Amino acid sequence: MLLKTPYLLFLGDAADPLAAKVAQGIKDWRPEHCVGQFRQPGCNADMNIPDLSIDEAVQKGAKTLVVGVANRGGVISDSWLSVFEEALNAGMDIASGLHNLLVDEPRLKALAEKNGRALIDVRVPQHEYPIANGVKRKGKRCLAVGTDCSVGKMYTAMALEQSMKKRGVPATFRATGQTGILITGNGIPLDAVVADFMAGSVEWLTPDNDDNHWDLIEGQGSLFHASYSGVTLALIHGGAPDALILCHEPTREHMRGLPGYALPSLEALRDMALSLAQVVNPECKVVGISVNTAALSEEEAKTYLADVETKMGLPTVDPFRDSADRLADALK
Amino acid sequence: MLLKTPYLLFLGDAADPLAAKVAQGIKDWRPEHCVGQFRQPGCNADMNIPDLSIDEAVQKGAKTLVVGVANRGGVISDSWLSVFEEALNAGMDIASGLHNLLVDEPRLKALAEKNGRALIDVRVPQHEYPIANGVKRKGKRCLAVGTDCSVGKMYTAMALEQSMKKRGVPATFRATGQTGILITGNGIPLDAVVADFMAGSVEWLTPDNDDNHWDLIEGQGSLFHASYSGVTLALIHGGAPDALILCHEPTREHMRGLPGYALPSLEALRDMALSLAQVVNPECKVVGISVNTAALSEEEAKTYLADVETKMGLPTVDPFRDSADRLADALK
Repeated sequence: MLLKTPYLLFLGDAADPLAAKVAQGIKDWRPEHCVGQFRQPGCNADMNIPDLSIDEAVQKGAKTLVVGVANRGGVISDSWLSVFEEALNAGMDIASGLHNLLVDEPRLKALAEKNGRALIDVRVPQHEYPIANGVKRKGKRCLAVGTDCSVGKMYTAMALEQSMKKRGVPATFRATGQTGILITGNGIPLDAVVADFMAGSVEWLTPDNDDNHWDLIEGQGSLFHASYSGVTLALIHGGAPDALILCHEPTREHMRGLPGYALPSLEALRDMALSLAQVVNPECKVVGISVNTAALSEEEAKTYLADVETKMGLPTVDPFRDSADRLADALK
Repeated sequence: MLLKTPYLLFLGDAADPLAAKVAQGIKDWRPEHCVGQFRQPGCNADMNIPDLSIDEAVQKGAKTLVVGVANRGGVISDSWLSVFEEALNAGMDIASGLHNLLVDEPRLKALAEKNGRALIDVRVPQHEYPIANGVKRKGKRCLAVGTDCSVGKMYTAMALEQSMKKRGVPATFRATGQTGILITGNGIPLDAVVADFMAGSVEWLTPDNDDNHWDLIEGQGSLFHASYSGVTLALIHGGAPDALILCHEPTREHMRGLPGYALPSLEALRDMALSLAQVVNPECKVVGISVNTAALSEEEAKTYLADVETKMGLPTVDPFRDSADRLADALK
């Protein structure tokens, strides 16, 4: 594990619940990792777990203070730094996905060294990854691929892990982005890996496993997104998935950040992703579809999901509304 | 320009001509950049250009000592370092694509700083690249894509530049690997760029240009190579090519470095590369095929090229045997 558990979630002076979405993700998906939350005056987010001081958290066994909040104005404020210093002095590591790196703060760096504690900036690769060797690994792998960025690929893989475990199937969510790493305590920040080692880092993340074990790999980018498609293809070829799940958001008007670029159809995504996945795993299949219907009414969502299911001939769910149980069934 | 011209080519104690293939590339493709060569006792390579001392080279205007030879045993030897120091003292920059970085040699680093000279390790990105924005640029772009790595993509683009210029068509070879950078003095070391910025670095490399100007972009990796496919796709989406040239080596038994992986057919490469290129440039076409027939006899090569041309319905040449003239014609 990259991060030692359990965590104290640092919410700081989060302006609103959205600013604390990393903390919310940890609370939703790994509640057993959270001993409590640390909030400062002006905090408008609440995970509904105990408010603890640094000392109380340490007494409850907290090993890592996780920065679960986005900072304002691109600096780490003095009031945050004071808390981080207190945590280091009390024996905790600190983990963060902020743009401003913890290791770039001289006060923190010196204190961490003095106390033998770790500052873990999950945006920065913490490992030297190999070049991919394309050798087939044991165990099964499922990858979420999207028509676009930010269409619910991480959520889908998380929900799928939950549904698989409910069924008694051994399964592990494999994080490939910073939020996923903070939530699960492990993973690779794929978008920060040097080009030559991208696919190798994904092989490293999803090693040999039991025959009946599923790695549920968090997707990144989209094959159809001009800015990030290379990352997506490295994920497909490094992950060598046995199963693909197509992810989509039905109300988006153009590719995220790329006005003028239309989203591909689910058929186009299916055909392109499958052809590329079969280069490394000829047995790969598309097994289901996950749609983020947050922008639709209950009724609209129902109709949309049913229509897609009929058109594509694949189980189609919104894992947030419906759970990922039908996708888990499809993986069998 | 990243590298100041003209160059003095450093051949050192090259064990054989193959060890000096970077120097050979510069001599073949940019003879006008070479004032001479610098050889040491035991050198078994010869570019057939004047042997010059450091001082003579400076008098002839040399601005950069280019390391055109691979080193042995993974260290930069003392005899090399002495020459590099002399070059820095005489006012030259030094450029290198060696694994061992020039900037990691304390003696060189100190001397370069003292003299205000540059140590340019072309394996290391020398620029902060943007994230790709997918905006259409003016001018035309052609990209070489391969069934595998090392099938002649760089050579093809270089030869194409030569043929285009012969025809009076404005054209620029755009290097995306270290050898290409050393040859042309400019470019991006794409395999060393951080994932998120790969496609953006290619956009940066191939900016707006005159309507009739062609960028001839050096290909990297292969869409079908599990280790490097992500780099290839970033090149396709960042380059947004108007034309693709398929590159192939007909005697290879498996993908380079990946035993058990068969090479794709030219048809499979055509279809996959074109579908992906049309995501960013719907007008993109496959215009020709370049085959490295070095392992075939003259007669075998002729037959093979003719067969491929008939089967694929596209001009098919070995640019080393035949020049790239027919590919240049196809770009019109």
